[in-house]
Formats: sequence, C-alpha cells, structure tokens
Amino acid sequence: MTDQLQAIAFAKGEQSRFVAELKEFLSIPSISTLSEHKPDIQRAAGWVADQMRRIGLEHAEILPTAGHPVVVADWLHAPGKPTLLIYGHYDVQPVDPLNEWHSPPFEPTQRGDNLYARGASDMKGQVHAVLKALEALLRGGGLPLNVELLIEGEEEIGSPNLQRFMETHAEKLRCDFSLNADSNILRPDLPSLAYGLRGLAYFELRVYGPDHDLHSGQFGGSVHNPAQVLCELIAGMHDANGRVTLPGFYDKVRALPPEERAALARNPVTDEAWRAMTGAPRLYGEAGYSTVERLGARPTLEVNGLLSGFTGEGSKTVLPAKAMAKISTRLVPYQDDLAVEGQLRAYLAQRAPATVRWELNSLTSSPPAIMETNSPAVRAASTALEATFGVKPILHLEGGSVPVVSMVQEGLGVDSILMGFGLPDDNLHAPNEKLHLPNYFHGIEAYIRFLSEVAQLS
Amino acid sequence: MTDQLQAIAFAKGEQSRFVAELKEFLSIPSISTLSEHKPDIQRAAGWVADQMRRIGLEHAEILPTAGHPVVVADWLHAPGKPTLLIYGHYDVQPVDPLNEWHSPPFEPTQRGDNLYARGASDMKGQVHAVLKALEALLRGGGLPLNVELLIEGEEEIGSPNLQRFMETHAEKLRCDFSLNADSNILRPDLPSLAYGLRGLAYFELRVYGPDHDLHSGQFGGSVHNPAQVLCELIAGMHDANGRVTLPGFYDKVRALPPEERAALARNPVTDEAWRAMTGAPRLYGEAGYSTVERLGARPTLEVNGLLSGFTGEGSKTVLPAKAMAKISTRLVPYQDDLAVEGQLRAYLAQRAPATVRWELNSLTSSPPAIMETNSPAVRAASTALEATFGVKPILHLEGGSVPVVSMVQEGLGVDSILMGFGLPDDNLHAPNEKLHLPNYFHGIEAYIRFLSEVAQLS
Repeated sequence: MTDQLQAIAFAKGEQSRFVAELKEFLSIPSISTLSEHKPDIQRAAGWVADQMRRIGLEHAEILPTAGHPVVVADWLHAPGKPTLLIYGHYDVQPVDPLNEWHSPPFEPTQRGDNLYARGASDMKGQVHAVLKALEALLRGGGLPLNVELLIEGEEEIGSPNLQRFMETHAEKLRCDFSLNADSNILRPDLPSLAYGLRGLAYFELRVYGPDHDLHSGQFGGSVHNPAQVLCELIAGMHDANGRVTLPGFYDKVRALPPEERAALARNPVTDEAWRAMTGAPRLYGEAGYSTVERLGARPTLEVNGLLSGFTGEGSKTVLPAKAMAKISTRLVPYQDDLAVEGQLRAYLAQRAPATVRWELNSLTSSPPAIMETNSPAVRAASTALEATFGVKPILHLEGGSVPVVSMVQEGLGVDSILMGFGLPDDNLHAPNEKLHLPNYFHGIEAYIRFLSEVAQLS
Repeated sequence: MTDQLQAIAFAKGEQSRFVAELKEFLSIPSISTLSEHKPDIQRAAGWVADQMRRIGLEHAEILPTAGHPVVVADWLHAPGKPTLLIYGHYDVQPVDPLNEWHSPPFEPTQRGDNLYARGASDMKGQVHAVLKALEALLRGGGLPLNVELLIEGEEEIGSPNLQRFMETHAEKLRCDFSLNADSNILRPDLPSLAYGLRGLAYFELRVYGPDHDLHSGQFGGSVHNPAQVLCELIAGMHDANGRVTLPGFYDKVRALPPEERAALARNPVTDEAWRAMTGAPRLYGEAGYSTVERLGARPTLEVNGLLSGFTGEGSKTVLPAKAMAKISTRLVPYQDDLAVEGQLRAYLAQRAPATVRWELNSLTSSPPAIMETNSPAVRAASTALEATFGVKPILHLEGGSVPVVSMVQEGLGVDSILMGFGLPDDNLHAPNEKLHLPNYFHGIEAYIRFLSEVAQLS
C-alpha cells in the first residue's frame, strides 16, 4: 500500500474525530468586518496555529499585519521536490439576518449530511480538510513534497493587508505551485476546477438632502427626498438589457472566444436547476449571454444593502435626511478594480441632481484573475479529482472573488490551483451556511491525492 | 378687568409652573406605533385625565377603543352659549435615529427659548397650552361657553379607531364649533390659520427575489437583485418634472383658482428662508408650482424608509433576498386616500418584472380636508390671533395630515378651526423636536382670547 493510499485509509477511519475538531473551529465567531470580534479573530488564529503544530507542521507562527494576523507554517524536508504554497482564510462573514438561521451560526449543528455554521463552507471546512490531508500524510512519515501554509484573517473584507504581507515575506513564500482551497465544485457528483475568478470593487454611497429628518407632510413636495434620489441613481445603473451603464464599464472586458463559450456550454447544470437553487421566480441577467457566462465571464453591479429613514414597525411620516446604499461590482479580466471607482464617480457626477450632496467611499476591491488551463498543476489537480470522484472534472469560471489569487500571480509569479469543495447551495455569506460532509471527506481525499500528484512534477 | 384679561394675567404669572408641568407630560414616552410603549400610552392618558380634573373640567374619563384610549372631559355650564369641541392627541412619534438627539428625547431640556423633547411641539405642548387656557378661565369662576375635550392616543398612527369612537359617542360630541390645536404658524412673529390639510396614504412595499440571501459573486448576474428592482420601481414613481406617475394620481386634484394662488403668494416666507430651514442644498418640487403651492395644494409621494441586505459597518457581499420601502403619499382635495392604493397597485402590477414577487400593505390613510375661510369661527380665531401677536394672521394650506379634521367634518358636520402654535423648524417627527416657549405662552393667551370670542357667536 502506497503512502497515499495509507493516508486515505487513515483519514477515512478518523472521520468522526475530524468533524468534532471542525465543530470546535466553527464555534469561534471570527467575523473580520466587525471590530467587536477582534478577540475571536485572535482565538481562531491561535486555533489554526495549534492545529498546525499538532499535525507535525513546523515553524507555525501568528504573524501580525496592520489588520488581522496571518498564520503560517511549513514542512520543507523533501529536497529536490517542488514547493507548494497552500492558501486559506480563517475569518468569516457577518451572520445577519440572525433570525433567519435555523440553528445558531456559531453552534455547529449537523442535520442529515450537512453541518450548519457560519464559515462551514467559506472556508473553515476547507482549511480543515487541507490540514487533515496533511495530517494523514505526515502521520505516515512525511510529505512527498515541500509545503508552506498561509492562512489569513481578512479575506472576507478583501484582504487589505495581504499584498504588503506577501511583499514583506516574499522570500519565505517562494514556491513552485500554489493551491487555493477557497473554491467550490458544481455538484457533489461533479468535480470542477475554476480557471478564472471575478474581481470586486465594493462601495458605500451616501446621499444627503436636508440636514435633518423632516416631517413629510410639512416639507414634502419642497425638497428632494434623498431616498428617492438614491433609488433614481441606482435605477439608472442598469439599462433595459441588464447591462451596467457606468461610462466605460465594458471597455476592457475580455471577449469570450467561441471555443471557450462552447466549453462553458458543456456545464451540465441547467438553468432550471440553478433557478431552483436560488428560489427566485425567474432567472435574469445581461441579454446575449447564458447563465454560466453571466456568472463567470461577465461583470455585474449589485446592491448589497439599502438604508434610509424609518424601517421599524408601523409608519413614521419622515422625509429622511440621508440614504445609504452598499453597491459592489464583480469584475472580469481585463477590467481594473480601481478604474471602476472612477467610472462610478463619473456616473454620479453626471447624474446626481444639485438638490442633494453625495459621498462615495470605496470599501474594498480586488482585481479579477484568469489562469492557464493546460498547465502541469491543473493536470495534477484533474487527476486527483477524477480518482476521488470517479468523474473527470469540468473547467469553469468562478463568479466570486479571491483577492490573493492575483496577488500570488503578480507577487510570486505562480498561478493558483483553485481546488475547493464548497457547493453552490452552501448559503455562503447568507443565513444557514452549511458544509456538505460527504464533500468535505472527498475533499480530504482529493487533497491527499493532489499533494502526491504535485510531488511528481518538476 | 374682564375675565379674559384676568385669565391672561394669571397665565403670565404661572409660566414657570406651567413649563414644569409640561416637562412632566413630555417625559412619558407615549409612542403609539411601538407596541412595547403601551404602558406609557396608558400613563400619558392618565396624566391628561388627572390634569383635566385638577383644573376643574368635569366627567374626565379614559375611554377604551380597539387601540389606544381616548381621554374626554367637558364643562357644560353656559346655557344658551355655543359648545366648542377641542381636539388634541397625547401620543408621539418614534425617536429614532436616537443618536442624533442632543439631549434624550424623554428628558425635556431647555436650551435658550426652546424646550427639547419628543412631542414638545407635536403636540403635547399645544394640548397643555389649551388646558392652561381653560385653567386660567375656570379659575376666574367659569368658562364663557360650553366645551368638550377629546384627546386621543393614535394620531401618529393615523387615528385608526377614532371614526368608530366618534360614531359611538356622537351624541356626547355634538357641538357648534371645533378647535383643533394640532397645527402651526409660519413664524414666531407671524400668526396663521390653516384652511386645508393634506390627506395621507401610507404603504409598505416589499420586493422578494431569491428565497434566501445569496453570495453576490456566486450568483450575481443570474438573478434580479430585489434591492435594484425596488429602486427601479421607486425611481419610476416620479417623472422628470417631479410629478407622480401613478396612473390617475392627478385626475381628481383640486385646481387652484387664480385668486387663491394670489392669496397664497402673499405668504411672506421666502424660498431661501424655507431652504435654510431644511438645510437642503436646493429646493425641489413639481414643475409649475411655487413652494407654498407644492406644500399645501399639490399631492406628493415620499419614500419614508428603505431597508435591504447588509447595512452594518464595512462590506458584506450579499445579494439580498428581499427589499422593503415605506412609501407615503400626501393627498389634496379631492383625491381619495383609498383610490390611491389602487393606483399604486396598478403601477406595480404594470411595472414590476416577473423576476420578483411583491407585496403592498396599506399601513394608514386619511382623507384631505378643505374648509370655509370666511366663517364666524375663522373670524373669531383671526381676532384672537391679531390681539395676541399684534399682526393679522395669514391664511395658509397645511402640508400635514390630521385625520380627525375630515372625521369631524363628516361625522359632526362642523369645520375645524386649525389653531396651533408649532413652528416649521420644530423638527416634528425628527430628532431634536422642540417647542418654542414664547410661542407656547402666546398660544395660551390666544386660546383664552379665542374661547372668549367664540362665546360671542350664536
């Protein structure tokens, strides 16, 4: 029996311990965007570093940044073998609306095949699966290659300090390949590999009208209602074809070559299956593109939040002084996340009436990424997935953003293998986030196989 | 010295006691729209009934309704003299945003000439001024006419149970004239009388997209964002001329006769003075009408609140499942508050895309009112105001809504004299509501004079 098969067998025998451990990790509310959770961020980082030491990784350390710390470790005892950088994050999204959770977000609860908790799928479950794959191999005497781990605490707020961190620690992070576990597959029976990620530019737009809330009867009709103006500005951001109207928004968008459209069309998830997963009455999107294209190859603009005036029970006849929207764009190659801020400002400068003042703050941004689909590392990942699932993986474009992918590409000159095991119905960033446990176990096996495959590359 | 002048002199001598008493009344958080304040509503009703008894009114009672109780009292010892019904309300608006108050809303705080507290101007201050006018006259031996008082607890939620109450107690409420103290004047040095009120129709609109919050990267581009749809629907409710687009909205609007436009144009408050009071960068409104006309003679549609998705600190990349707006219209004669709901539904049915579901709930409504400007009671009020302020009052149309006015008109066949002493900058329904104390004292005097004037009418 090879080391790889022994490791797989070991992992299968330890499943209930692994899940118990994961629940411990998931019970730490490490929400990166809310400052009151700073102590929890510290606890989660400590938990990861302890795990690393316990399974036999070396030099486990919690390294500070200007924001939340990065946890690193390595194992470098395979001379002549390649070095793989493994990326993950231990922070999670906020949990509101809390009342829509069926079980408390930080009390991991198993129902059927699923483990429900904030961060279960995005991505403590996957960080843990990688650690368990490493544990299973290390227990057999060592790894077949060299590894470096980088588990950050600010992915959910756009990794604002990671670039600087990677520059500072460039020497230490030098590697031949990179595995990014913050990804997903299309269905539990259908492995997939993402070769592109959308970028993100996230803003808060505030519109100010009167300098204090007014009585809507006494003043209504004489001043421009900032909530109405905000709605008018947002409404103008899409045209009737579902296209974004910011000036220049599509200028640099990468056109889809016909052969790539054909390849994407082989995605077996039907529109009806996708719609059912969302629960929306109908699908919607940019005219002229399929759902798969709209999700991976086309940029979007979303309203993530709206707040103005009175939102409580009953009625209050207030003419609000201000209105706020959280607005984000998902970007595709070769759009520039910083240029988009300029496009949004230009749109607002042109459209906002002189009856209000407005303020735009950029909250976070990251560039899009696209990767070579025929590299040795992609083939290694493909082999590992096929051996695990018994099905050849399909290649797809991922709609989400993982800022570190372009940082690794630009800073270390290495493409990332995006191999993760979330599912589209895992309720990422939403109430009732879950991890499909059979997928988590498949993930551990696939990571063991992938590490062994990469060890063969030169 | 006449009874009237003795009463005025007495009231002047008691000012500091009056203010201390009023502070007591203002410290009761009688917010009618929030169910957790039910005990405070009871306390406020009790406070009013005690006051009535203490100053010598008779039959003071707290009468139940299906909602909050009505406090009544009378004094009917002037045979052959007219009977005046006096209306007020003891409930107040909610206080949020609480952090914008400079002193706690239910800890009345005097700064300069102003007394700051929720309800100070709308309208505990004015209810109290009427009670103090009655006290001053009763102390002199009796009133020159018969009075009935009706102080309700649901004005701020649209007086939903008052119609029924007035039908039940029609016999008791029969009167020759009616004074409604829930009104204001234009400036501290410029008394005014309102001869019309706008009506109100207040709604909550909910737009539902996906059946749960989605990750905006994973799903963005494939489903219609309900916050975007809500904004599009709201944006379409006004055209480029600031006119409301609901089908049929203007069909029954009372046209302004030229002589009435000319009379309204004599309002001395300049656009710049009005703008400065709002703090808005510029005024705005329906094309073709002056500010005074827009405020009193033209209907409006306002967004009173917006809520969707993530509105906390920082960023959360959520594609929200739903979005909500509070939307209200202010109506003018001869619009029908119930017909407007149909117009809004017709608009939504026509405009809302099939990619979302929507729900519209009517929260409260009241019809507009317009009154005879040359009646004996209006002349009595005018005489009282001129004697108090030394300036002839101007007639104006009030932008706010006081549902009881049309109920009294229809149920009891009597026009209301709208004589109150709020000011446009009193921050009604907003943080830092205040009462201008010199105006409150003028109000007590004007009510004493008005009661004496009405006593002369037959």
